[in-house]
Amino acid sequence: MQTQILERMESEVRTYSRSFPVVFTKARNARLTDEDGRQYIDFLAGAGTLNYGHNNPKIKQALLDYLAEDNIIHGLDFWTAAKRDYLDALDEVILKPRGLDYKVQFPGPTGTNAVEAAIRLARNAKGRHNIVTFTNGFHGVTMGALATTGNRKFREATGGVPTVGGSFLPFDGYLGDGADTLDYFEKLLGDKSGGLDIPAGVIVETVQGEGGINVAGLDWLKRLESICRAHDILLIVDDIQAGCGRTGKFFSFEHADVVPDIVTNSKSLSGLGLPFSQVLMRPELDIWKPGQYNGTFRGFALAFTTAAAALRHYWSDDALAQDVARKGEIVAKRFQTIAGVIKELGIEASERGRGLMRGIDVGSGDIADKITHKAFENGLIIETSGQDGEVVKCLCPLTITDEELNEGLDILETSTRQALS
Amino acid sequence: MQTQILERMESEVRTYSRSFPVVFTKARNARLTDEDGRQYIDFLAGAGTLNYGHNNPKIKQALLDYLAEDNIIHGLDFWTAAKRDYLDALDEVILKPRGLDYKVQFPGPTGTNAVEAAIRLARNAKGRHNIVTFTNGFHGVTMGALATTGNRKFREATGGVPTVGGSFLPFDGYLGDGADTLDYFEKLLGDKSGGLDIPAGVIVETVQGEGGINVAGLDWLKRLESICRAHDILLIVDDIQAGCGRTGKFFSFEHADVVPDIVTNSKSLSGLGLPFSQVLMRPELDIWKPGQYNGTFRGFALAFTTAAAALRHYWSDDALAQDVARKGEIVAKRFQTIAGVIKELGIEASERGRGLMRGIDVGSGDIADKITHKAFENGLIIETSGQDGEVVKCLCPLTITDEELNEGLDILETSTRQALS
Amino acid sequence: MQTQILERMESEVRTYSRSFPVVFTKARNARLTDEDGRQYIDFLAGAGTLNYGHNNPKIKQALLDYLAEDNIIHGLDFWTAAKRDYLDALDEVILKPRGLDYKVQFPGPTGTNAVEAAIRLARNAKGRHNIVTFTNGFHGVTMGALATTGNRKFREATGGVPTVGGSFLPFDGYLGDGADTLDYFEKLLGDKSGGLDIPAGVIVETVQGEGGINVAGLDWLKRLESICRAHDILLIVDDIQAGCGRTGKFFSFEHADVVPDIVTNSKSLSGLGLPFSQVLMRPELDIWKPGQYNGTFRGFALAFTTAAAALRHYWSDDALAQDVARKGEIVAKRFQTIAGVIKELGIEASERGRGLMRGIDVGSGDIADKITHKAFENGLIIETSGQDGEVVKCLCPLTITDEELNEGLDILETSTRQALS
Amino acid sequence: MQTQILERMESEVRTYSRSFPVVFTKARNARLTDEDGRQYIDFLAGAGTLNYGHNNPKIKQALLDYLAEDNIIHGLDFWTAAKRDYLDALDEVILKPRGLDYKVQFPGPTGTNAVEAAIRLARNAKGRHNIVTFTNGFHGVTMGALATTGNRKFREATGGVPTVGGSFLPFDGYLGDGADTLDYFEKLLGDKSGGLDIPAGVIVETVQGEGGINVAGLDWLKRLESICRAHDILLIVDDIQAGCGRTGKFFSFEHADVVPDIVTNSKSLSGLGLPFSQVLMRPELDIWKPGQYNGTFRGFALAFTTAAAALRHYWSDDALAQDVARKGEIVAKRFQTIAGVIKELGIEASERGRGLMRGIDVGSGDIADKITHKAFENGLIIETSGQDGEVVKCLCPLTITDEELNEGLDILETSTRQALS
Repeated sequence: MQTQILERMESEVRTYSRSFPVVFTKARNARLTDEDGRQYIDFLAGAGTLNYGHNNPKIKQALLDYLAEDNIIHGLDFWTAAKRDYLDALDEVILKPRGLDYKVQFPGPTGTNAVEAAIRLARNAKGRHNIVTFTNGFHGVTMGALATTGNRKFREATGGVPTVGGSFLPFDGYLGDGADTLDYFEKLLGDKSGGLDIPAGVIVETVQGEGGINVAGLDWLKRLESICRAHDILLIVDDIQAGCGRTGKFFSFEHADVVPDIVTNSKSLSGLGLPFSQVLMRPELDIWKPGQYNGTFRGFALAFTTAAAALRHYWSDDALAQDVARKGEIVAKRFQTIAGVIKELGIEASERGRGLMRGIDVGSGDIADKITHKAFENGLIIETSGQDGEVVKCLCPLTITDEELNEGLDILETSTRQALS
Repeated sequence: MQTQILERMESEVRTYSRSFPVVFTKARNARLTDEDGRQYIDFLAGAGTLNYGHNNPKIKQALLDYLAEDNIIHGLDFWTAAKRDYLDALDEVILKPRGLDYKVQFPGPTGTNAVEAAIRLARNAKGRHNIVTFTNGFHGVTMGALATTGNRKFREATGGVPTVGGSFLPFDGYLGDGADTLDYFEKLLGDKSGGLDIPAGVIVETVQGEGGINVAGLDWLKRLESICRAHDILLIVDDIQAGCGRTGKFFSFEHADVVPDIVTNSKSLSGLGLPFSQVLMRPELDIWKPGQYNGTFRGFALAFTTAAAALRHYWSDDALAQDVARKGEIVAKRFQTIAGVIKELGIEASERGRGLMRGIDVGSGDIADKITHKAFENGLIIETSGQDGEVVKCLCPLTITDEELNEGLDILETSTRQALS
Repeated sequence: MQTQILERMESEVRTYSRSFPVVFTKARNARLTDEDGRQYIDFLAGAGTLNYGHNNPKIKQALLDYLAEDNIIHGLDFWTAAKRDYLDALDEVILKPRGLDYKVQFPGPTGTNAVEAAIRLARNAKGRHNIVTFTNGFHGVTMGALATTGNRKFREATGGVPTVGGSFLPFDGYLGDGADTLDYFEKLLGDKSGGLDIPAGVIVETVQGEGGINVAGLDWLKRLESICRAHDILLIVDDIQAGCGRTGKFFSFEHADVVPDIVTNSKSLSGLGLPFSQVLMRPELDIWKPGQYNGTFRGFALAFTTAAAALRHYWSDDALAQDVARKGEIVAKRFQTIAGVIKELGIEASERGRGLMRGIDVGSGDIADKITHKAFENGLIIETSGQDGEVVKCLCPLTITDEELNEGLDILETSTRQALS
Repeated sequence: MQTQILERMESEVRTYSRSFPVVFTKARNARLTDEDGRQYIDFLAGAGTLNYGHNNPKIKQALLDYLAEDNIIHGLDFWTAAKRDYLDALDEVILKPRGLDYKVQFPGPTGTNAVEAAIRLARNAKGRHNIVTFTNGFHGVTMGALATTGNRKFREATGGVPTVGGSFLPFDGYLGDGADTLDYFEKLLGDKSGGLDIPAGVIVETVQGEGGINVAGLDWLKRLESICRAHDILLIVDDIQAGCGRTGKFFSFEHADVVPDIVTNSKSLSGLGLPFSQVLMRPELDIWKPGQYNGTFRGFALAFTTAAAALRHYWSDDALAQDVARKGEIVAKRFQTIAGVIKELGIEASERGRGLMRGIDVGSGDIADKITHKAFENGLIIETSGQDGEVVKCLCPLTITDEELNEGLDILETSTRQALS
């Protein structure tokens, strides 16, 4: 494997190539292959970008068909047949069956761009600058989004420009058992000198991905929605990682039966790993003036095409959703088993998650790293999350075969034993 | 043409579909086709994203070859063969022949993301928060980048969060003939109570695209570089629109023989309109710690693949560069002619630009709009830029044929006469 | 009483003249007289500025003596005999006996100026921008101080400039009985993605004045100090209202046996109601460079003179301190009685406070206003505080006679009965 | 002279005591005396705070009369007879004769507090966050005011919190002879992508004090007013140093016949060096809600009293104004002579100023310091200003006797010769 040019030319900012220092070449569904022909089960899946697996043949075929002719590839924000087809699929397959009525904005095709657009829209709509966000939330690293992202790693690397416009409140469970953290939010809202500027919106992940697979209770989410309604605050669900079926429903907030005012999607939205994002907004919030938010790549027709194919193929019935629920249970059970193994070694550990967004909290990043390094040696790509990287997380493709899933889980269990004993 | 779903579902923020209210389907080099089969010459080219034309066959073939097998498409920031191949092409074809030594960062694949990374790097490197930017500069709309973007349209739509960390100074020519605007910059730098916080960096476009095809003089750029060196300030050239050959050299700053400390590229970098961006930095500036700036789509292998093909095909010799210079002269002459036509009608007008980044300043957005609307009726896609949209600009593919180029120019001249008489 | 010119010329921003719409002329100790000769007991005492009463004869005599000759009145930050004498008194009477070693900064002679200097010093000393402050904290309204002040009234009136650099955490008791709010602070400090930028300092009032006479527990303060020490965070006690003996000791933090890194004083510091403030800092924190913080009135010799007299007269022994404790008990008991009266009327009410900083929380601003308005009719100046003005507070002069104190308390009790029945 | 306690206890932030390391005790009109009995002519006058001299007998007598009885000294923002009397004097003596109609706000009694209130009012009134300020402007150091203050000394000492909401433009003359800097302002206002957020207000000193006695041309000020009117921008004149007669008229803007929307006064407003400030605003701008801006010392009755006496005594006729004009000419001539002396020594030097706000620009802080240090040795207190301290400035009391004035000027001329030869 030749890595010299990579090591010499790529900035020190690189990360995953440090955990997995091989050169990847091929990939299919949940299986990656490196240049030396070694294969790996993929429990990372592009950090949730490859819910339908690598090189998903159904989705890829749509791309190849599109490319077979001189169909327009890049169209700024032109009207294109590809965009229309995507909107049609979104409406017919996703929104209408769920009784949702949203308008769609295509910002720059990255998650952080979608978050910037979403919170700016909320601010403009309500005439207030503040956005409430939660401990351990991750919503991107451009300066607007960063105001809502908790990680010091990013927040301390802004070169002396503090972020403006975000207020952190404790996420569900953060104040310990028995304390409903929304009591604090509600108290602050009603407190004229509590220091909380009345927010334009609240941005929340229903399951925090980077933050450590922290699962918001469904009652908590429902109460959060109620508080927002009562105080004329917009509820923004950042479904960039938890959406597109990851938790077992297309939108992660469906579990809680809440209807956000604004939704952000990206990551798996294109279905094939292509850059793509969208902001969904209740129609009456669409107060944007023409061109008030822009970007060059907001009309990437290849992503429209693969995204439409993904929606139509996977969401026209509930087969995938049920399969995710089923596989989620498999992972949950095995993760509980593995947590048990760890606890036998005298280390606190516990499983948590929703659908196929699951983790084992092993209490420290050092321990988690030992496990994932050993897993990599054994042929499994798996990463950590959480404030200290203390959660070994599974974000495998939703389309993973049972064989691959079990193989990956077996590797993880074996690796855990090897790493910790 | 069916446009109902587009009109109903897409946010009011949409822009180009207002100027060009048709549904585009096919595109090849400098020619677009709408759903009704009507053809248009494309002088917009994705706002500079399609320097090599739509569906460029050489570049597209590389994409098809890559897709023909299960090569990895999305790889976070993994090491992939595709990334290595791109870095190799960048080094061999672009950097080494120019004697440039840069390290490369792949931020999120949009221009604004590259700018956010670039200015954050500059701030961290110098321990200063301020970035000097110039009147009529455009560097993106996420909150960090927006601090360096002059447009009120965006700046006033942040919902009550002022941008932080940018100081505007007059671009070359802004203070009128005879005044070197860098005198003001230099005076402020030496003035302990002038109000200019000593900047970490200066960000500049050598030819301002959105700002109105404002061309920085080569001496001005050279002096800007000298001032930066003398004051230990980093020179950041935002080559997102003017780079990738648009002005007749791969990097627009080559004309002035300056060597920026940091360079941002995007738009035409992928060669085929795929989202892609990079930040080039002098190696000693690469003080990023692992993961201090991240994003999901910074390892989009399809873009690496097409970008490598574009570099190798078009920049291994100087044929394209010479062709751009030649075509630039054609456009310049015809634009002067058209400006003359306009002046005969009693309206001040003048031509300006560098390479194939050219415009006719007609003094008002209303007049420019009349011309471009008429041009669209006549089969030419052409847009305006400038603070009031007063500059009719040509950003046609560099690969446009002479026939298409002349056809487009003919349409423009005819449309101008029709629109203004 | 002529009030036309006052009503016509003074800005609508005026407040106290709305609650007490009379023209005051004379004042002595705890007794005010209006232009019509009507007398009032003063339980407001300049919002804590007149701890030694109006026109305190001992302190006033020092002023008259100073004015009797052409002693310098205004001296920028010159060395003057008056300043030296004040520093000597501060050192001998206050600091040394308490084993405190502080250097002294005289910023502009207002509380908000002292807070601005204090938090800026903390930021510079620690190289971090964040200051932790608490719910219901009040630390001034200039933009730097306002970042640490919770009141929406001020925070929403900044004309679209959000404050930067303050993070609000729950004050002692804010999360309800049984929850130690410092658990949350400590958890956030240790959480790498909790959203709390590691602060340079924590600013706290030991008893929140404007916030509603909220009394921090002594254990809570001690633990706050420990947390600060453990995390290298500076502890700033804003003793502007609670200091100068108000709680029964010169510094309010003496009760808790904590030693702040930085202390702010103002209000009663001059002893006679003259504008005056100071910042005390541990010597090793004095990293100011000459002139890095300035202001015209930081050398107001009349205030040095009266302040020195106040310190020497009232703090050379513990007579005043003991008297405050004694009177505080009197107020506490009567406030409990009055709270009992209110509860009999079916309204929740409770007493709280420390020393002569005491309040009755009656649950709503409307009820509190009824009581204070009636009290004013009956000859007692008393104000409310708290986020909704729900706390009737007593900040009477520490030097109030027992007769005046009892008279005031009698009026309050009577007025309460009248107002609520 | 005992200075140990001063050196030990006072923060390193102290400044003037470094230039004038003596302990001052007595002061009368333009003469200071130190503890050793040495006398000094005072050309600094509290940096413009003592326009009526030290211990002005007329004004002091008003203070003593007030103190002779138990008149209220501190009254928060109560209505007091002292406040009413001041407003009456302001209206009768100053506003009415000039045809001015202003409402009055008393913020905290410092200049920076007045500026914070003024710019916040402007922002609220116009619903825009930006305030235009000028190179070399000084408007205070609290964070809101600091956004409009140019000095790096302060701007770089904010501990990592950039100021928000100020945009610097070149003051009159800053772009060299022949360039009207307001052309740039006007161009930016009309430029939709120039980077200048349309300001709520412009804050300007008609003669910049700290900035180096930079005199705005009367035509420039008049044009600035016109631009503000044309663009619905509020004109704020910060008359803290240049007001109260310093330039020869009570308000410095009277020379230019402009009528600001908002005016700030402080420094000499109290007449005796007592902390005092006010904000004057056109009545229709008084949109403050009760208590939206507050502070403890906004009702300092002693300052009302001395200020009223000063206005009545010195501004009921034009004797003082004429005298300032006459003395200003004396200083101007002698400063020209001294500048000539310096030029003979091969150093560029020139005189400038208006009224008794005058300076000699000697090109460098080192040279200026040599002169002022020598002057101090010779018995003259005189300071420098300007971005590098390159301007030796005269801010002597307006009430200085001709003898004292000439003595001071003689000392300065002698000292200049001694220092530079």
